[in-house]
Amino acid sequence: MSQYRTFTAEDAVAWAQKFGGLDNPSVLVRAQEVGDGNLNLVFKIFDTQGVSRIVVKQALPYVRCVGESWPLTLDRARLEAQTLREHYQHCPQHTVNILHFDPALAVMVMEDLSDHRIWRGELINNVSYPQAPRQLGEYLAQVLFHTSDFWLQPQQKKAQVASFINPEMCEITEDLFFNDPYQIHERNNYPATLEQEVAALRDDAQLKLAVAALKHRFFSHAEALLHGDIHSGSIFVAEGSLKAIDAEFGFFGPIGFDVGTALGNLLLNFCGAPGHLGIRDAAAAREQRLADIREVWTTFAERFQALAAEKTQDAALGYPGYISQFLQKIWHDAVGFCGTELIRRSVGLSHVADIDTIPDEEMRHACLRHAITLGKALIVIADRIENVDALIARVRQYS
Amino acid sequence: MSQYRTFTAEDAVAWAQKFGGLDNPSVLVRAQEVGDGNLNLVFKIFDTQGVSRIVVKQALPYVRCVGESWPLTLDRARLEAQTLREHYQHCPQHTVNILHFDPALAVMVMEDLSDHRIWRGELINNVSYPQAPRQLGEYLAQVLFHTSDFWLQPQQKKAQVASFINPEMCEITEDLFFNDPYQIHERNNYPATLEQEVAALRDDAQLKLAVAALKHRFFSHAEALLHGDIHSGSIFVAEGSLKAIDAEFGFFGPIGFDVGTALGNLLLNFCGAPGHLGIRDAAAAREQRLADIREVWTTFAERFQALAAEKTQDAALGYPGYISQFLQKIWHDAVGFCGTELIRRSVGLSHVADIDTIPDEEMRHACLRHAITLGKALIVIADRIENVDALIARVRQYS
Repeated sequence: MSQYRTFTAEDAVAWAQKFGGLDNPSVLVRAQEVGDGNLNLVFKIFDTQGVSRIVVKQALPYVRCVGESWPLTLDRARLEAQTLREHYQHCPQHTVNILHFDPALAVMVMEDLSDHRIWRGELINNVSYPQAPRQLGEYLAQVLFHTSDFWLQPQQKKAQVASFINPEMCEITEDLFFNDPYQIHERNNYPATLEQEVAALRDDAQLKLAVAALKHRFFSHAEALLHGDIHSGSIFVAEGSLKAIDAEFGFFGPIGFDVGTALGNLLLNFCGAPGHLGIRDAAAAREQRLADIREVWTTFAERFQALAAEKTQDAALGYPGYISQFLQKIWHDAVGFCGTELIRRSVGLSHVADIDTIPDEEMRHACLRHAITLGKALIVIADRIENVDALIARVRQYS
Repeated sequence: MSQYRTFTAEDAVAWAQKFGGLDNPSVLVRAQEVGDGNLNLVFKIFDTQGVSRIVVKQALPYVRCVGESWPLTLDRARLEAQTLREHYQHCPQHTVNILHFDPALAVMVMEDLSDHRIWRGELINNVSYPQAPRQLGEYLAQVLFHTSDFWLQPQQKKAQVASFINPEMCEITEDLFFNDPYQIHERNNYPATLEQEVAALRDDAQLKLAVAALKHRFFSHAEALLHGDIHSGSIFVAEGSLKAIDAEFGFFGPIGFDVGTALGNLLLNFCGAPGHLGIRDAAAAREQRLADIREVWTTFAERFQALAAEKTQDAALGYPGYISQFLQKIWHDAVGFCGTELIRRSVGLSHVADIDTIPDEEMRHACLRHAITLGKALIVIADRIENVDALIARVRQYS
């Protein structure tokens, strides 16, 4: 029986040799810890040629950036492995492949994606992956459809809902998305110069009612097995390839949350573009982000609709027209959740490099202000934004 | 260790002596099986004076009226005991008291309510219990509020959602409420003379879209721990007292389902009244049912609102005004689910005595037709019925 211990580089190599599925595991000789997240150790395992071949990821029992004072369940590794395996089953082309999981050690062995890069960095540097938005829409459609009531048998769905109950990770989202930015909280993180904009978030009845409704849906609407944190830092891209990773926030929740998180991170990049690029490049990058948003949504909606038309199991839900009606509801949810992502990444604990790495302070603050203004507007008017063209028009209006 | 066996009267007496909590258990001497439901044995346990003192209820491993060909999980007894105990904790005055539960035998020992009567029979006979509607509204408010996200801590709620997953009983509801009446199915049960009205249910796009949305909410909206079957046959009444029983359909679902079931059974009685009473009495009974409906809803809504204002734990959900907004959503859900109850009790497998015991065939068919027409209208226009007065006006319009 394995018991929890923090992995050393040697442990990681041994684990990769044992569970990496290589024909000649002895070529694996060296590990490098490359984790830049807050919650985990991530080792790349190199062969004798110096090529990274396998990744070994271990959950830490505390939040890394804060230290041992913020303990965090190791069970999240089980939930991550389970979520990624479930998603892989439905969309292997866009989900990282989990080769082995040990629950007691909270260790996953997974495919190496060293030939890929984190999408967020590429977006910031304005490196184009023309297929990525369509692939992200495809991923969302496949994994969310195949874990929804349209596809799963009712008994199977209920068993899955139970096995993906994820209280500790959901609590982080509940706090960081829906509580902290709308109250005075020590976890909040924004420059003093934005105090007025942030204070206004605490004092806007329409906004707080809309945020309450979104939080309530996050609490109670078990529509599909979400990734739960599908921002551009959880997405690896290469030419013609896109892979989702890091699913420790996976649980059965409102589909619009995943869609909104994905769209929200494209909008955060939109907000930050003028801080990283010259005027013309920034304008072009912004147009590209709006086109990306259109493509993520339309691909998602068209593919989900097509899957539902072809494969819906349930007699009532399969009635012609219902899926369109439900997609419209997902859309409005997505716009609202997208707004909460903009706000919590500007005001709350965890920011995005798209804005935070802008060297010029004044510009950085202007971009934060832009994200707050846009996020607030989207939350409040989500139910009146009828489609992705209307969203894009609104984004232009607030730019 | 106890293993499952079907209880005899002697077993029931022994169990009541052991677990009934009486100071002098030896006075319990005789059991009578009184179950009139389809799923369980129910024994009343009498003392030497011939007074019923304790009830012993055992779940059968099959549906009684159909026989052993329709097996049904014994785990429903655990879910019933758990649901009633949870509800009792929040509303002891209106929930039957479970004294003991044995999971292997699927046996509950519970308080005797022989001084109460089943509300449905009393409603049919036009016997008035003036406090019953208010008490039912109070029960619904207390048990649904205290098992919702307004009251439970998020981690506690999620653990409860998992422990109340109830796939087999939910499947019965999913089939009987949302599938069977809207398709040709051997379980359906209606007189041939209504074939035209029933056929129209299978062929109405607006209706089927609305039913799909209601079923989807039943599948996915885990708002509170529902009773799951709170019709007037699951409610005992006496002067000044009301007790809910029979909670084997308990699970975390949309609050409007319980509220709509309760209102729907009052409307079914409304529809059946002319079949049991003279013209004047029937008219008076109908007015009383409409007043009852108003009182159930207004009590529920006012009490839920007051509980939320006083006790909501969640920072976002506690924002002033959100509870009203959510109650409005519950209301529309309730009207829709109420409509499905009218339809499934007229067309589907399981009918109500309020209509089925009407001696005159023509009158009985007219009452069924009325329930179908009214149910269909309520489902389709649920989102446009703004409040209980509007509902009552619509009911008059369709009478």
